[in-house]
Amino acid sequence: VFDPQILRRLMEADDGTDTSLIAVDEELDRIFDLDEATKVRFEGERPVAIGKEVSPFDAVDTGLFLCKPPIFDALMEARKEGDSSLSAGIRKLIERGKIQAVKVGGHFWTDIDTPEDLEHAKGALLKGLGKKEEDGFISRYLNRPLSRKMTARLVDTSLTPNGISLLSFSVALLGAFLFGIGGYFWTLVAGLLVQLASIADGCDGEVARLKFSTSPYGGWMDTLLDRYSDGAIVAGITYGHWLSFPEASTWAWGVISLLGFLLVSYTKKEFSLRYGRKLPPDIWDKVSKRDLRLFGIFIGAILNRPFEAMALLGLLSHGVILRYLLSGYRKRQ
Amino acid sequence: VFDPQILRRLMEADDGTDTSLIAVDEELDRIFDLDEATKVRFEGERPVAIGKEVSPFDAVDTGLFLCKPPIFDALMEARKEGDSSLSAGIRKLIERGKIQAVKVGGHFWTDIDTPEDLEHAKGALLKGLGKKEEDGFISRYLNRPLSRKMTARLVDTSLTPNGISLLSFSVALLGAFLFGIGGYFWTLVAGLLVQLASIADGCDGEVARLKFSTSPYGGWMDTLLDRYSDGAIVAGITYGHWLSFPEASTWAWGVISLLGFLLVSYTKKEFSLRYGRKLPPDIWDKVSKRDLRLFGIFIGAILNRPFEAMALLGLLSHGVILRYLLSGYRKRQ
Repeated sequence: VFDPQILRRLMEADDGTDTSLIAVDEELDRIFDLDEATKVRFEGERPVAIGKEVSPFDAVDTGLFLCKPPIFDALMEARKEGDSSLSAGIRKLIERGKIQAVKVGGHFWTDIDTPEDLEHAKGALLKGLGKKEEDGFISRYLNRPLSRKMTARLVDTSLTPNGISLLSFSVALLGAFLFGIGGYFWTLVAGLLVQLASIADGCDGEVARLKFSTSPYGGWMDTLLDRYSDGAIVAGITYGHWLSFPEASTWAWGVISLLGFLLVSYTKKEFSLRYGRKLPPDIWDKVSKRDLRLFGIFIGAILNRPFEAMALLGLLSHGVILRYLLSGYRKRQ
Repeated sequence: VFDPQILRRLMEADDGTDTSLIAVDEELDRIFDLDEATKVRFEGERPVAIGKEVSPFDAVDTGLFLCKPPIFDALMEARKEGDSSLSAGIRKLIERGKIQAVKVGGHFWTDIDTPEDLEHAKGALLKGLGKKEEDGFISRYLNRPLSRKMTARLVDTSLTPNGISLLSFSVALLGAFLFGIGGYFWTLVAGLLVQLASIADGCDGEVARLKFSTSPYGGWMDTLLDRYSDGAIVAGITYGHWLSFPEASTWAWGVISLLGFLLVSYTKKEFSLRYGRKLPPDIWDKVSKRDLRLFGIFIGAILNRPFEAMALLGLLSHGVILRYLLSGYRKRQ
């Protein structure tokens, strides 16, 4: 199993001569079964030895090559000498300086020879799924661990990542609708569904990363669906509250919250576009994220106060936006 | 008067040797008083002649130089020979191959020697203010011509571009508030104020460009204020309508419109971030822009139907978003 980016790196490094390329992983502490691995030793940038027994060694052969025609002569020669392994052929090429190594540490790859290897590969892939920098607190400590479990099952189905996005969106819409019915029972169910949607929202990206099929389109659509479901949830909660408090102020709070939820995200995107870099992540960034927002609404639903929770989170969002603008104003040139 | 970017270009082109640099404009058809200009002739990339009478010529001297110490010897020599003009010194350097020309066509610069030159410079700067690619139809044919007239006055005041953004935002907020009063008179005034704010919204950027003081912060804040004023206008119109139709459906239309107005912009920004390029501009892009939205609300106000105009524009916005998502889905890899 390997990240197709490794092949792209090999192709990009190809200089068009008859020098073959070998993808090696120099991040040795992340390699699972180092004993079984084929090691490579370097002198400077040039590979000088390859084999399971090579010691000392600087990197490990990933098993991915970009071979040029001379490999056939090298293999024939090695075979005549009684060793018909690929490593023996590569060794011949190394002697002739016809091998270039491309370091691909950081990209996922793993050898699978045994059932244990398979288990390890699954675990390693699932473990690497978090987005540490981007995830908020609730994502990190509650949603991700749960979504990973869901992902481990979803990845074996035929559901596409975009299909999962739509499914999670539908769950959020159902929650929004139930909020609109009012009454504690439906409010509680709605809160649970919204939190479930928040957890499931991580699965689309996780499945995409597991299948190495992330796409700009998937990210784009998923982000938009998030904003639409935020809108639906606000509308549902506000309508549910309006049934008991049929006043314009109820809707005013709904509009204020909706503006806050949408614009706190908008503010960050617009910053990235204008400045060509992301807003530096800080505690307020985490506090204003969707995972915490939906968790807050979930807690509000449990306490039978989803409207108050929403209004509070809406105000918080505007506070974060104001803080961004003011701190940007102070730091402008 | 010149765009400071020209100096930056000169500094970037400097190779650290004692070769002086001269900024020349190769876009001859845009030069105002070609007779009075100092011309430059090239052989390949090398300037070979400079002076008012040089003919044929390939570019015009902008009057901006980055001079290195040898200019002093050259000027002394030229002076001994009876010509103490800068051009004469530069001519000496050209003879020695110690001049490099940097083409800065496209950046604004103009010579001001006479009152006529000053008038021309003002006119040329104001004329160049449009943002042809980004402007919607209403911007282009109605708002820009009017905002340019306002800008011509504003640029002589001490108002900063960010101050103008805040002022235009306040006018929009006042319009939103008046929509909330209801009744044809205030609705009409509100509509006029909203259209005025839409026109004034162009002035901040125009003044900034005239003063060569555009900034990422200014653009960021202005865009956010636009979204907030969209929110306020929707809330005002919806509240005004609610006074006559106190039903939840009134607010539902408000929420739907608000979502549409904010997300049609969000969709485009998110596309840029995900794909690293802008959504290709087309008719639907223009139709979903703020200038047309506010103009539609203005027309709605005149017809005493601002709520219906808003709801229609909201639906249109969602239609455009859906169209973006579907066409993105078809084109995905």
